[in-house]
Amino acid sequence: MKQIEGGVTAAKGFQAAGAEAAIKYQNRKDMALVYSEAPCKVAGTFTTNLVKAAPVQWDKQLVDNSPFVQAVVVNSGIANACTGKQGMDCCKTEAECAGKLLGVPAEAVLVASTGVIGMQIPVDRITAGIEKLVSVKSDTLEAGHDAARAIMTTDTVPKEIAVQVEIGGKTVTIGGMCKGSGMIHPNMCTMLGFITTDINISKELLQKALSADVVDSFNMISVDGDTSTNDTLLVLANGLAGNDEITKEGSDYDSFCQALNFITTYLARKMAGDGEGATALFECKVIGAATKQDARTLARSVICSSLSKAAIFGHDANFGRFLCALGYSGAEFDPENVDLYFQSENGKIHIYSAGNALDYSEEEATKVLSAPEVTILADMHMGTFEATAWGCDLSYDYVKINADYRS
Amino acid sequence: MKQIEGGVTAAKGFQAAGAEAAIKYQNRKDMALVYSEAPCKVAGTFTTNLVKAAPVQWDKQLVDNSPFVQAVVVNSGIANACTGKQGMDCCKTEAECAGKLLGVPAEAVLVASTGVIGMQIPVDRITAGIEKLVSVKSDTLEAGHDAARAIMTTDTVPKEIAVQVEIGGKTVTIGGMCKGSGMIHPNMCTMLGFITTDINISKELLQKALSADVVDSFNMISVDGDTSTNDTLLVLANGLAGNDEITKEGSDYDSFCQALNFITTYLARKMAGDGEGATALFECKVIGAATKQDARTLARSVICSSLSKAAIFGHDANFGRFLCALGYSGAEFDPENVDLYFQSENGKIHIYSAGNALDYSEEEATKVLSAPEVTILADMHMGTFEATAWGCDLSYDYVKINADYRS
Repeated sequence: MKQIEGGVTAAKGFQAAGAEAAIKYQNRKDMALVYSEAPCKVAGTFTTNLVKAAPVQWDKQLVDNSPFVQAVVVNSGIANACTGKQGMDCCKTEAECAGKLLGVPAEAVLVASTGVIGMQIPVDRITAGIEKLVSVKSDTLEAGHDAARAIMTTDTVPKEIAVQVEIGGKTVTIGGMCKGSGMIHPNMCTMLGFITTDINISKELLQKALSADVVDSFNMISVDGDTSTNDTLLVLANGLAGNDEITKEGSDYDSFCQALNFITTYLARKMAGDGEGATALFECKVIGAATKQDARTLARSVICSSLSKAAIFGHDANFGRFLCALGYSGAEFDPENVDLYFQSENGKIHIYSAGNALDYSEEEATKVLSAPEVTILADMHMGTFEATAWGCDLSYDYVKINADYRS
Repeated sequence: MKQIEGGVTAAKGFQAAGAEAAIKYQNRKDMALVYSEAPCKVAGTFTTNLVKAAPVQWDKQLVDNSPFVQAVVVNSGIANACTGKQGMDCCKTEAECAGKLLGVPAEAVLVASTGVIGMQIPVDRITAGIEKLVSVKSDTLEAGHDAARAIMTTDTVPKEIAVQVEIGGKTVTIGGMCKGSGMIHPNMCTMLGFITTDINISKELLQKALSADVVDSFNMISVDGDTSTNDTLLVLANGLAGNDEITKEGSDYDSFCQALNFITTYLARKMAGDGEGATALFECKVIGAATKQDARTLARSVICSSLSKAAIFGHDANFGRFLCALGYSGAEFDPENVDLYFQSENGKIHIYSAGNALDYSEEEATKVLSAPEVTILADMHMGTFEATAWGCDLSYDYVKINADYRS
C-alpha cells in the first residue's frame, strides 16, 4: 500500500467540483459534487442522534434501497436539520436537479448538508449551485481539492487523502475527504466524510468493511461530545479497477480493509486535530485493558473530559484529571495499579504508578505537553486489549467560535 | 416551612469554624470544622468514580459502620486523591487529632478534601489547622459562614441556607453548605455538601431521604461533565429538636423530605450557577416526557452540551443545538412533535414547534437569553413526566481557570 496525492478524484472514473452558491457563506466555495462515470455500490453510516437532518434521512433510504448511486451533492453553511417537510422536499429537488443534469436517476444522487441547524436552505441557490458544479466537474486533483474546501465550515484546513493497493492483481485506489470541526462526537460515523474507490466489491462486504472500520476510527474521536444531527460517512465503489468482484472475506478483502483503515484513521485524526479552536491533537492510548470495549471506553472518556482538554491547552501536567476521567468512564480497573505516561515528539514521561505521583520535572512535562500532538498513555494492567481515541484541547477559541456561531 | 438566616450552625447544638492552615492557598481560610454537641446519625452519598479520594473511602466506611458521628473536618486546596496509603494515613491522623481535641472517638470524625488531585496533604499543617478550628468553633451564624467560605476552591460565592419546619409539634431546623465549582457532574452526590439538622430520625430513614433526594437535586446538575474523585454529601442529624424519633414513613417524614429538598435544590442550583467561569445559570426543564427517567436524561443532556452552553454564553438563540442534545440523549421521542421555549425574567419565547422554527424576533430572543438565569423549556408530548436540570454557560473564563488550575 502506498499513499498518493489527491482525494476523492484519485480513484478511476471519479470527478468532483466545488462552487460558490452563497447558501449562507459569501465569497467562498460552499457546494461540492462527487460524481462517478460508472454506477457505484454504496455503503454508509449515519448519526445515531434521534434528530436526523433531512439529508441523513434521504441518504439512509438510498443506501438501503437504491440499486446503485452515482453522485453526491454537498453544501456547507446550512445543515437542513430540524426543517420538517420543507427540508425533505429540498433534498428531493437537489437530487432531481443533479440527476437531470448528470443523466442519472434522482435515486442515484446522495445529498449532504452541514452548518446551522433550523434554517431552511434557499432552494433556488442550491439548484443554481448544482448547475455550476456539473459544468465545472473534472477528474483532476484540483477538482477534488475544491470539493474538500467547499464542504468546510469552521474547519481551518481541508482534509483529504488517497492510497493505492494491489488487489487481485490490479491497482486499486481509495481516496477520501471529510470535514469537522464542531459538534463532533461521532457515533456510527462522523460529521461528513466521503470515500471513493474503484475497487470491485459486493455491496454487502463494502458495508461490512465500513461498519467494522468506524468503530475504531471515526467513532473514537470527539471534539465536544455533541453528536451531530448530520453525521454521514459514505463510501462509493465503482469497480473500474477491474479486479474480480470481492464477494467473500479473505486476503483481498483484508487488503481493502487495511487500506480503508489507513484512510479513515488519517481523516479521523485530522478532524480531531482541527477541532474548533484546537491548538493540539490530544490522543489517549489505553493498553492492558481487560476487554476491547473497556479500552475504547477508557480512551474515549479521557479525550472527552473538558478538564483534561483544558489541561492540554495549558500544557499542564495535571495528571489527576486524566486518572479521574478513566475512573468515571464506567470500565472496571484498579486505580492503585495504573501507569500513566505523557508522550509527544518532545519526549516521554512516566508520571503516575502504583497509586502515587512519580517524581518528574515540571519543566520537562510542560515541554512534552507543548507539542502539536500529545499522547496520554495509560496502562491498566488488566489484560491485553488496547484502543486509541483522538480529540483536541479546549481553548478560548472554542468558546469564541461557538458563543456566536451563527453570525 | 420558612427560610431562616444561616447555614450549618442554624440547627440546635451545631458549631462550626473556619481557619487559615495554608494547606495550599495562602492568606485565606482553607479549613473548616462542623461539630455537634450531641452524637449524630449520619447519611451520605459519594462519588461513583472508580478513583475515590482517601477521604471518600474514610467517610464511606464511617457512614456504613460507625454508631454515631460528631464532627466533620474539611480542607480546600488539595483533594487527597490518588495519594495511595499515605493519603489514607492522613485521614486517620486528621480524625485522631480532631477526636482527641473534641473528646470524641476518631470513628466519629468525618473528613473531606477538595482541590488538586495527586498531591499529598502536609499533615503537620492539617493538625495545626485542626487545633485552630477547635479553639475558635462556635454556634454563631458567622462561624457557619466562615466554614462555608473556607471550603471554597474556584467558587466565587459561599453557598449556605437554612430552613425551619414544624415536625411532631417541634421546630426542626435544617441548614446546609456546599462548594463547587469545577469537575462537577455529580452521580450519587455533589462535590462537597454538608447538611446539619436537629431532627430526631432513624439512621435508615435519614439515608433513605437523602438517597431519594439527590436523584432530582444534586444529580441533576453539571458544570463540565467531569465526575469528581471527591464528591461527598453528608447529613448529620443530632435529634436535639426533641421530636419523637421518626422511624417510619408518613407525614412527619414527608415534611422532612420536603424541607430537605428545599435545601438541596437551593444548594444544587447555587452550585450550577456558580460553575467555573459561569455568567449564567442554565436550566433545562423537560415536560411531557414518557417516563421520569427520560425526563431526567433529556434535561441533563441539554445542560451538559458544550455547544448549548456556549450558545447561552453568547445569548445566541441557536435552538438547533438544544434539540440536537435532546436527540442524542438516548431517550425516545418524536423530533417532529417537540415544542421548545426560551424563558427568563426577561420574557418567554416559543421558538420551535412541529418540526420547524417559529417566527421570532432575534432581538427579543437575545434579551430573554441575557438574563442571569435562563431556562430552556422542552415539551416532548410523550407523556406526563417532567424533570429539571441545572448547569451553567461555557465561557472564556472556564478555559482560563482550567488551563492552569494548579498555578
